[in-house]
Amino acid sequence: MSTKEVADRFYELCSVGQYHEAMQELYADNARHVEAVEFPGAPYPRVLEGKSALLDMSTKWMANTEVHSSEVTKPLVNDEHFVCEMTIDATSKEGPMAGQRHKMSETCLYTVKNGKIAEAKFFYSMG
Amino acid sequence: MSTKEVADRFYELCSVGQYHEAMQELYADNARHVEAVEFPGAPYPRVLEGKSALLDMSTKWMANTEVHSSEVTKPLVNDEHFVCEMTIDATSKEGPMAGQRHKMSETCLYTVKNGKIAEAKFFYSMG
Repeated sequence: MSTKEVADRFYELCSVGQYHEAMQELYADNARHVEAVEFPGAPYPRVLEGKSALLDMSTKWMANTEVHSSEVTKPLVNDEHFVCEMTIDATSKEGPMAGQRHKMSETCLYTVKNGKIAEAKFFYSMG
Repeated sequence: MSTKEVADRFYELCSVGQYHEAMQELYADNARHVEAVEFPGAPYPRVLEGKSALLDMSTKWMANTEVHSSEVTKPLVNDEHFVCEMTIDATSKEGPMAGQRHKMSETCLYTVKNGKIAEAKFFYSMG
């Protein structure tokens, strides 16, 4: 699959809330997530490597989060990269943020190698 | 300079329309621009390398363009990258688009190496 085909399929799944399925279908085995910052007390490192670790994080996140709404913009492609904007309105069920509804947006940069997503890098303001 | 310092200075200059000055001050000698697509009939290749070639392009662009307004969002940093959104409302004075006022937005991904901008990659919809 080309970067554009991966991006289109990613959008198809994420735009109906199937983020976990997108990860399952489109991520490379050694895919990694790179957060902008290390969150104090977070159960995961800023850079989390491996599709199985990412799927596990996603499963736990889903179990611990009530998603009120989410949105993703159409991906924009350039060579091996695509970018999109994700917005989520959610309430955590457990942990330090439990019960606090929060809305956040991030710019997501995906790198595609050999037809699979090899890296997702997230950009957001902590202000 | 760290990525964040470069990003902050970039924003300081670009937010008052000093794109050319930002290039002069912050680009590496071998910096390159990577457009999302090859424009048919464009005087520049999709990938344009070298600060002097980029400054030359910028000089010609300024001479040929009336800028009605421009905006840049605050850069978001992650490791060696920063992203921002640029919007410009402009009218070309010459060429195939002469006299046509157009507004366009793009997501810009900058890569910083050794305290200088080494690459700018642009993402936009052609739709």
